[in-house]
Amino acid sequence: MPGISQKGIQLPASPIRKLVPYAEKAKAEGVKIYHLNIGQPDIHTPNEALNAVKSTTLKVIEYSHSAGNESYRRKLAAYYAKNGIQVTHNDILITTGGSEALLFGIMTCLDPGDEIIIPEPFYANYLSFAMTAGAKVVPVKSTIDNGFALPPVESFEALITPKTKAIIISNPGNPTGYLYSRSELEKLRDIVLRHDLYLFADEVYREFCYDGESFFSAMQLDGLENHVVLVDSVSKRYSMCGARIGAMVTRNPQVIQTALKFAQARLSPPTFGQIASEAALDTPDTYFEEVVNEYVARRDLLVDGLNSIEGVFCPKPKGAFYAMARLPIQNSDHFCQWLLEEFRYQNATVMLAPATGFYSTPGAGLNEVRIGYVLNLNDLKACVEILREAIRVYPNKTHS
Amino acid sequence: MPGISQKGIQLPASPIRKLVPYAEKAKAEGVKIYHLNIGQPDIHTPNEALNAVKSTTLKVIEYSHSAGNESYRRKLAAYYAKNGIQVTHNDILITTGGSEALLFGIMTCLDPGDEIIIPEPFYANYLSFAMTAGAKVVPVKSTIDNGFALPPVESFEALITPKTKAIIISNPGNPTGYLYSRSELEKLRDIVLRHDLYLFADEVYREFCYDGESFFSAMQLDGLENHVVLVDSVSKRYSMCGARIGAMVTRNPQVIQTALKFAQARLSPPTFGQIASEAALDTPDTYFEEVVNEYVARRDLLVDGLNSIEGVFCPKPKGAFYAMARLPIQNSDHFCQWLLEEFRYQNATVMLAPATGFYSTPGAGLNEVRIGYVLNLNDLKACVEILREAIRVYPNKTHS
Repeated sequence: MPGISQKGIQLPASPIRKLVPYAEKAKAEGVKIYHLNIGQPDIHTPNEALNAVKSTTLKVIEYSHSAGNESYRRKLAAYYAKNGIQVTHNDILITTGGSEALLFGIMTCLDPGDEIIIPEPFYANYLSFAMTAGAKVVPVKSTIDNGFALPPVESFEALITPKTKAIIISNPGNPTGYLYSRSELEKLRDIVLRHDLYLFADEVYREFCYDGESFFSAMQLDGLENHVVLVDSVSKRYSMCGARIGAMVTRNPQVIQTALKFAQARLSPPTFGQIASEAALDTPDTYFEEVVNEYVARRDLLVDGLNSIEGVFCPKPKGAFYAMARLPIQNSDHFCQWLLEEFRYQNATVMLAPATGFYSTPGAGLNEVRIGYVLNLNDLKACVEILREAIRVYPNKTHS
Repeated sequence: MPGISQKGIQLPASPIRKLVPYAEKAKAEGVKIYHLNIGQPDIHTPNEALNAVKSTTLKVIEYSHSAGNESYRRKLAAYYAKNGIQVTHNDILITTGGSEALLFGIMTCLDPGDEIIIPEPFYANYLSFAMTAGAKVVPVKSTIDNGFALPPVESFEALITPKTKAIIISNPGNPTGYLYSRSELEKLRDIVLRHDLYLFADEVYREFCYDGESFFSAMQLDGLENHVVLVDSVSKRYSMCGARIGAMVTRNPQVIQTALKFAQARLSPPTFGQIASEAALDTPDTYFEEVVNEYVARRDLLVDGLNSIEGVFCPKPKGAFYAMARLPIQNSDHFCQWLLEEFRYQNATVMLAPATGFYSTPGAGLNEVRIGYVLNLNDLKACVEILREAIRVYPNKTHS
């Protein structure tokens, strides 16, 4: 039998995936499982998007332009302008999800062996895409103690080598929910300019900022026109993860032209998804007001509830729909498996994401979990009580 | 300004893309351009597929399973069984177009520096995907003189090195339209087994076989269960290239499990496209009978017409909807550009694909073009007359 590639062998399987069989077994036994482990919101996709697809008059579902439909790119440029980001449709490449935008960005800007610095904990697939391109991820540690604020400049500087080509940030953060301030981003700008790096800014949660905080984009940083590559997606914004439409946006013409070559090889982004995404830009602001209010209520209930459990610490995030919590446990992989395999509370349990999957430093995140508040308030309330009881009886605590 | 990756610099831009500005200029001048350069059929997408999308009752467009919806995979397995290919839904990974299936296959099976042998001329993006994975394409020459039959076994053997890991075939072929016989495929099997290689079989034109020829799949070859990776797509079959749904199919469990890791990193294939593709499996056989009859009529008109032009040789292909033609010209890139830039016949001209883009051997294909018969009979008739006149007056002929 012919062998498998080293890349294939080494590509990590996420800790959440390892839990799936336990969740399926519990489900088969009739146990109610609350899924706090996912990034799939329960919010309805805007009618504008759904209706556009349902009323299409296309007779042939053709390839679109490899960079995406021009009408969509023009309308998207107007959306960015409204958000303080000045770009033209030529600076935008429509991609198959934010995933492809990131992969194209890394493939375009980095050679095998080049290094990318990423504040840790980070979205696990950053590692997969870097490995796919043969690049190396170098984590710079942020900490739950300050809610995962940007690590100090010195921590970045200490990690920069001649191989360093890029920094990736997620803002607001997955898995942390942390919202970088303008002054933090300006510190990043100085590092990027000093070492002539790319800054990949994953801003797919742009609309989800809370407590009156306004969003400041890496694209708004002066002097970084050739350095910032924005990774965007409609998945979370319009709750349509399955549309598989994202965008790579940059004012660096060489980057966009080179990325287009990768885009041409895969022909075009999905046609139906582009129709939905273009129409979604007509979603009224009230939709987002309602969604943001809902997320704030959920976050407050969840975070306050978690912090009322003995031994639990959960900083209150200002963005996205995730919270990281430190639990009084020795091993989050074991705890999350135990929740699915052994623990029941009124015949229900919760599925969480072990934080180990968001750290590439061995041994990091062992007493942390990521919780997505993608369930309604009643369910979240039940989840807090399940976790309270679980932590009370869990045998492998750090202290009793 | 930070630099671009070597991969990005070296990725080829197709000769067709270089012609686009000339086509746009001619169009702007009011010239009618017949597009024989593309693989986008004009055939209508089946109503079954369109109606399924238009009548969806989904309220949230969620991620699907990373391997694709199970209901679709089960139904697809039944389609394969009907076509003599015995697989289960677990052998199928739904991908974002056949493009992603091929990329996943190469990423899964080949390490950087490994070699893939491909009969030349070949679909240009094979080279792009191989380069993306860091693999090297080694062409084995087939010739228009025998209609691009499989090169002799000795030609393959002469190219095999310890780095050789795979062979890619397109069957029926793009750009050649050549349909491999069962005995040719059995010769390939012997090579594959002798050297323990993977055989990537791109069979996206499976339904388009003519003159009573029946299709024999590489998946039907005995003894290659662990070696064959089928690349499939709904793009051509149902004329819905924009759905971006393909499949990687293999009975090698290690390959499917490893490819799934790449699939998980990009989350899921498009939801709307999967809805359309699952419903498309209910397309009645009469649809394909009509389509095949139409393509046969087009092929006959085109090929007979081309062969009636002095100095032109066009073998009659038995599959797909492309024909390769040898023209009495010195340089097909120049000829195709000249057609767009200078030549007019009744204020119209044709856009062709220079064959140079389908050869990786330098200097090969200079007197060949690929013609897609994706236009109706009246238009194709006009195209033949345009080409007859163009060849008559073209200044850079091989002989006068």
